[in-house]
Amino acid sequence: MGVATQTGVKVGIFGGSGYSGRELAHWLRRHPFASVLFSTGSKPPHIPHEEGLGRAADVYFLCLPQVTSAAYVQKVREAWPDALIIDLSGDFRLRTPESYKRWYDHEHGAPALLPEAVFGLTEVFRKDLVGARLVSNPGCYATSVMLPLLPLIQAGVIEPEDIIVDAKSGASGAGRTLREDLLFCEVEGNFSIYSQGRKHRHIGEIEETIERVTGTRPTLTFSPHLLPIERGILSTIYVRTERPVAELRDALETYYAGSSFARVVDPAPRLKDVNHTNLCLMSVHEGAPGRAIVVSALDNLVKGASGQAIQNMNVALGFEETAGLL
Amino acid sequence: MGVATQTGVKVGIFGGSGYSGRELAHWLRRHPFASVLFSTGSKPPHIPHEEGLGRAADVYFLCLPQVTSAAYVQKVREAWPDALIIDLSGDFRLRTPESYKRWYDHEHGAPALLPEAVFGLTEVFRKDLVGARLVSNPGCYATSVMLPLLPLIQAGVIEPEDIIVDAKSGASGAGRTLREDLLFCEVEGNFSIYSQGRKHRHIGEIEETIERVTGTRPTLTFSPHLLPIERGILSTIYVRTERPVAELRDALETYYAGSSFARVVDPAPRLKDVNHTNLCLMSVHEGAPGRAIVVSALDNLVKGASGQAIQNMNVALGFEETAGLL
Amino acid sequence: MGVATQTGVKVGIFGGSGYSGRELAHWLRRHPFASVLFSTGSKPPHIPHEEGLGRAADVYFLCLPQVTSAAYVQKVREAWPDALIIDLSGDFRLRTPESYKRWYDHEHGAPALLPEAVFGLTEVFRKDLVGARLVSNPGCYATSVMLPLLPLIQAGVIEPEDIIVDAKSGASGAGRTLREDLLFCEVEGNFSIYSQGRKHRHIGEIEETIERVTGTRPTLTFSPHLLPIERGILSTIYVRTERPVAELRDALETYYAGSSFARVVDPAPRLKDVNHTNLCLMSVHEGAPGRAIVVSALDNLVKGASGQAIQNMNVALGFEETAGLL
Amino acid sequence: MGVATQTGVKVGIFGGSGYSGRELAHWLRRHPFASVLFSTGSKPPHIPHEEGLGRAADVYFLCLPQVTSAAYVQKVREAWPDALIIDLSGDFRLRTPESYKRWYDHEHGAPALLPEAVFGLTEVFRKDLVGARLVSNPGCYATSVMLPLLPLIQAGVIEPEDIIVDAKSGASGAGRTLREDLLFCEVEGNFSIYSQGRKHRHIGEIEETIERVTGTRPTLTFSPHLLPIERGILSTIYVRTERPVAELRDALETYYAGSSFARVVDPAPRLKDVNHTNLCLMSVHEGAPGRAIVVSALDNLVKGASGQAIQNMNVALGFEETAGLL
Repeated sequence: MGVATQTGVKVGIFGGSGYSGRELAHWLRRHPFASVLFSTGSKPPHIPHEEGLGRAADVYFLCLPQVTSAAYVQKVREAWPDALIIDLSGDFRLRTPESYKRWYDHEHGAPALLPEAVFGLTEVFRKDLVGARLVSNPGCYATSVMLPLLPLIQAGVIEPEDIIVDAKSGASGAGRTLREDLLFCEVEGNFSIYSQGRKHRHIGEIEETIERVTGTRPTLTFSPHLLPIERGILSTIYVRTERPVAELRDALETYYAGSSFARVVDPAPRLKDVNHTNLCLMSVHEGAPGRAIVVSALDNLVKGASGQAIQNMNVALGFEETAGLL
Repeated sequence: MGVATQTGVKVGIFGGSGYSGRELAHWLRRHPFASVLFSTGSKPPHIPHEEGLGRAADVYFLCLPQVTSAAYVQKVREAWPDALIIDLSGDFRLRTPESYKRWYDHEHGAPALLPEAVFGLTEVFRKDLVGARLVSNPGCYATSVMLPLLPLIQAGVIEPEDIIVDAKSGASGAGRTLREDLLFCEVEGNFSIYSQGRKHRHIGEIEETIERVTGTRPTLTFSPHLLPIERGILSTIYVRTERPVAELRDALETYYAGSSFARVVDPAPRLKDVNHTNLCLMSVHEGAPGRAIVVSALDNLVKGASGQAIQNMNVALGFEETAGLL
Repeated sequence: MGVATQTGVKVGIFGGSGYSGRELAHWLRRHPFASVLFSTGSKPPHIPHEEGLGRAADVYFLCLPQVTSAAYVQKVREAWPDALIIDLSGDFRLRTPESYKRWYDHEHGAPALLPEAVFGLTEVFRKDLVGARLVSNPGCYATSVMLPLLPLIQAGVIEPEDIIVDAKSGASGAGRTLREDLLFCEVEGNFSIYSQGRKHRHIGEIEETIERVTGTRPTLTFSPHLLPIERGILSTIYVRTERPVAELRDALETYYAGSSFARVVDPAPRLKDVNHTNLCLMSVHEGAPGRAIVVSALDNLVKGASGQAIQNMNVALGFEETAGLL
Repeated sequence: MGVATQTGVKVGIFGGSGYSGRELAHWLRRHPFASVLFSTGSKPPHIPHEEGLGRAADVYFLCLPQVTSAAYVQKVREAWPDALIIDLSGDFRLRTPESYKRWYDHEHGAPALLPEAVFGLTEVFRKDLVGARLVSNPGCYATSVMLPLLPLIQAGVIEPEDIIVDAKSGASGAGRTLREDLLFCEVEGNFSIYSQGRKHRHIGEIEETIERVTGTRPTLTFSPHLLPIERGILSTIYVRTERPVAELRDALETYYAGSSFARVVDPAPRLKDVNHTNLCLMSVHEGAPGRAIVVSALDNLVKGASGQAIQNMNVALGFEETAGLL
């Protein structure tokens, strides 16, 4: 792909009509080294997904529903064995078919490909991403939780047990789905909790990834909430620790020194500070004795999906990591 | 006040131009036994506060800022010793001048009246409210936290330590104040955390009241957040417990059996279920082992302020508790 | 129905799960003389529409889609010839099958019933409504336009030609329909025009009704717009006139003298002034020479639908016109 | 300024803390040939305005209130006679002190500079802008009205009389001002009309500019409305014409052929199509006989203020017109 860097890469998008697909196309239009060859979608006018399979691109982004996505990863790999595939669904985020079965309640559609999928939490897996041909883009909630938690657990400055994650997301996180609870009149002026406790699929991805990297498995109580706004995730994370807040902040700052998109701030970030950017901003605050509060904010459609997907493409292909994302 | 029940009571409002003052007037207009004699405010046209002091009412509601309010309680008491005063500020919620000084960073303006102030968390202090002449209306966040926590602690089904309260409030909770961060363009599409940890004044009110009633002092980590909506508070409360969720739910249902406004529901309440009502809806859910999640939802301007104030008036004067509130 | 007044009436609702059906049930719960016997809807739990036909009520409200509604009016009439039927659909607003065909592009489903349907613009047709057995409730936009225009045309103080209506409605006006353009992420932060010019069905209803009452047929250019709010219609109406603004205002004030819900105000009404009420507030302002600006505001779910339906029931059955609506 | 093109220009911003000042800085950060030397504001941390006067820049943008702005234009001109000044206030939009006095009710602060101010409606005054040293940036509403109307009047395909402009703007149009009616709780869920008729200052700017360019003075009835969203203006314009809609559309397409930012579309543009871009999208539709409806949409902070200011800088200094704006 060395030549690609010089001349630019051709990109194909499967599932371009959803919110993350549209956001992806929006950012790729500004990318200095990438051009969109095709974008298929489920709304007219669109190119049927199958037709996209016949077009030769350097990079294929899949913004498809789970299960469907695994099948398409397989098809694209067979048709274009040298291309880079970046899958934005949940199908390749868990490392074993068993774990996938447990959290997604479905057999995995392409288990043979699981071992080679690189988990695209860019700041953590940069080295593995270089030259990768299959990247599994992390979940939006999961990104907002792993980026602050992973360095803190790795540095040993917080306890892995009894971590409480109270996360709030804009409505685009639910996708462009015709569901009555996503109608304007249902969401506007409202606020609600859903899938609280140990139900949400991102728990599997978070706990498994942090354990794989740090050797320590955390235990989460995780409560997602639906905000009456279009975009943005703010996660308020309550961790047990006997260390002073400054030590936690140091651990994060050290880990993300030199990072363009993951940054430690003070006071706490607001959604207005991150929306429409690829930033994940984090802060640490004192709670009651024995508790610290970690806040992280990101745009679920950018750093939580399409922006991080482009960041992964950049690293995989040897472009500047920030290309097209500033 | 027996006569009042027959003929109705005359009500005066100090501070009627703010959000809780307006909401109070709105509900009082429907009240079968009360009529508003005057409402003073800081916006034209209004009756200056001082002028209101000269008008004989049966009940005075004070929707004034802290510190100012204590001074007015004193003045009203001197002018009308037999009238019922319901103070919606924070000035009479803590039981000692020392506690007040600690949380409000100001000397108390009428310490001699503190002992007789009845704390107006209606469902808990019903008996004390009957015949009261000075009622201190609880804070909005505090109501949403005390109503679920107090019965659970009293029943001994949760631990009092390490309680984590993640609360989210609509913008009217900040009052009708000319602050740049409350402008439409700052709040819309945004979401943020503030005064997180051990800073918010309602912590004092919650911990002190629960200890007074149950004999057990809880310890809270408390994080308020600002929602881009007008009204409503949803508090997600994470408690330590080894008991099954059903036992917690039972404790709440038993405590609130027969209550018109405090109710246990399943699934979790949404703000749309409580806004523009005097309800506080609560639910209990399973977290990671050793943790349960308690959700409570109320309208900060109704059950969190003016509705509960009227409920307190009803109980104090011997009206039906629900009069004017259904 | 004299007995009904004493003892109250039993009410049945067909189509109770949509936005106007729910609003109707909300207001009927407060009505002093009506109780809801059943409410059928399309969401579980519900009573199937057909089953509702078997239950004897004094009043049937139909909140059903057009075409379906005409069929149900017929069925209800056959099953309960003495009951009052109030139809909130567009099926009985136009006076002839030909006119219906033109604007609704469908044959009328019950043409034999058309002649006896009373048009329920309450303030205008009060006398016809007394004792009516079939009431056709006007459209939401149409109510906001006819209430100010009809008296002005009748008084001869404006020209009937070249009336320009720029109307803006909250999203509940489109109903609880699973359409992609009604998803939260599509409506929030957005604003758009639709069906502009001579396309919207309410044009037929407005022009035909005004002509029938005043003898003069107006000509409208009508542009509806979709506001990113739940409820409320504000219509800005530009009329040709050589008369001073005060004369127009007088004509409206004279026409609505004594009306509880239709009122002339100054300055112009805002949606916050009318939402959650049965009011239609109107104002008149000076434009360029030869033009006046008439503003009207109402809540599309109340005066624009369910509130006016109850107002019509009140008049038809001889209750106080404002019963349950204050 | 030829050298500038090669090496980039240094830019100073007076009034950088308001909404248009912040938006300006946001877009300038992406500009390939410009770098922000300083930005003064009224909020800490900021450089006092006066201090900014001592810093040598190539371009000064003034995002100051009217009256204040004229005084600063004078001061900047005296201190830096060769610099380009772009004034975003209303102070230099009207061509005579008399006209300014009439619409702004204040004596003009720098009448000697009025004759040389170039009106920065870029698409119309491109030639005059080349090499200009003082540019008066048009108003946001005015831009949305003049861009569609001016070509139609110039082509003679609409009547200049009885033009009705019904305009709707997001709240950022009112600036970052501490006014109670701009608080979140006042704007959210609300919609209102203001300054309707012949009161708004942009009327003067629109009528005067169109007359100057086309020789024909239009007469407007102009009604601004406040939308509960942050940004965007949609103007619905009702014009008298006997010509078919296609002819009007042709006139606009011809005038804007090759324009990057002013474009004719169909169906009508929505605010989501233009927000966060420098586009002004326009469409034409049929009304009642003798009337056509022209819709225009733009982002008031971009094409309606800061984006057009940068566009003007680009043209004045000989950069690509779209530099930094795509």
